[in-house]
Amino acid sequence: MEALETIYTRRSIRTFKPEPVPEALITQILEAAMSAPSAGNEQPWHFVVISDRALLDAIPKFHPYSHMCHEAQAAILVCGDETLEKHKGYWVQDCAAATENLLLAAHALGLGSVWVGVYPVTERVDRFRELLRIPGHVTPFALLPVGYPAETLPRAERYNPQRVRHNRWG
Amino acid sequence: MEALETIYTRRSIRTFKPEPVPEALITQILEAAMSAPSAGNEQPWHFVVISDRALLDAIPKFHPYSHMCHEAQAAILVCGDETLEKHKGYWVQDCAAATENLLLAAHALGLGSVWVGVYPVTERVDRFRELLRIPGHVTPFALLPVGYPAETLPRAERYNPQRVRHNRWG
Repeated sequence: MEALETIYTRRSIRTFKPEPVPEALITQILEAAMSAPSAGNEQPWHFVVISDRALLDAIPKFHPYSHMCHEAQAAILVCGDETLEKHKGYWVQDCAAATENLLLAAHALGLGSVWVGVYPVTERVDRFRELLRIPGHVTPFALLPVGYPAETLPRAERYNPQRVRHNRWG
Repeated sequence: MEALETIYTRRSIRTFKPEPVPEALITQILEAAMSAPSAGNEQPWHFVVISDRALLDAIPKFHPYSHMCHEAQAAILVCGDETLEKHKGYWVQDCAAATENLLLAAHALGLGSVWVGVYPVTERVDRFRELLRIPGHVTPFALLPVGYPAETLPRAERYNPQRVRHNRWG
């Protein structure tokens, strides 16, 4: 798919077909995630690919916006690692850029996904650490259920010229 | 350009040709930025397009990694607005997703750009507020100088299988 079209037409997909996602596609979208820019190229990220049904079904027990995990065949937990920071305070932005690449790559490959917020909600961070045995220096950041879309959503027109200024605010 | 190729081959571009960037392309990349997902679709962003030479030249006086502003014909300051948040604590992630879309769209259109970090470095935030008369509830987040690339960089291979785990950390 063409890049601008991919960016303009990506939507949050919350219902999925039962077909599993081929491992090769998961690798391609992780490759996209890790192609993101980061402060001083610090790449302060880790990814946990969750495909175990019991783990997927456990997530909606503590995360209120993750019901689609019951249907998704896989989910990727993007995590940040402050010990990898070269520039203090930038890991969140780096992980968000990686997450956006991941969503776009999924869409480009005919998959669907949705950005389920984890950090900075402490309870969600703690529960993911517990469930997946993630060490204390690694912070669960965002969850991306991934699958073949069972819904088709039209392009969302979000361009708002009132949010654009030239040279000075006013 | 194809989406995955765009994601994989995007690099930070820091030297630019003297040709100005057509306004229509700036609009297309802002459209890409505003197509980003955000928490509860809150879209907590503003964009200041800087093309005034005196303003562009003023930036490197206070920002140590912005020397390319002297050469760039334009720069986009992505800003966050906490008063637009529906989900507290998510504006940084939302703005980072918009910033990544902006970088990818620039690359897809044959332009180059680089993510120059602003927030959370207080001095940079304050100096941008002053220079561009940005109100207190709006936070300068990242600066993106944009132009026709005067350098060609090979794809950076950043995929690292050691950063991928399955189902549980260990």
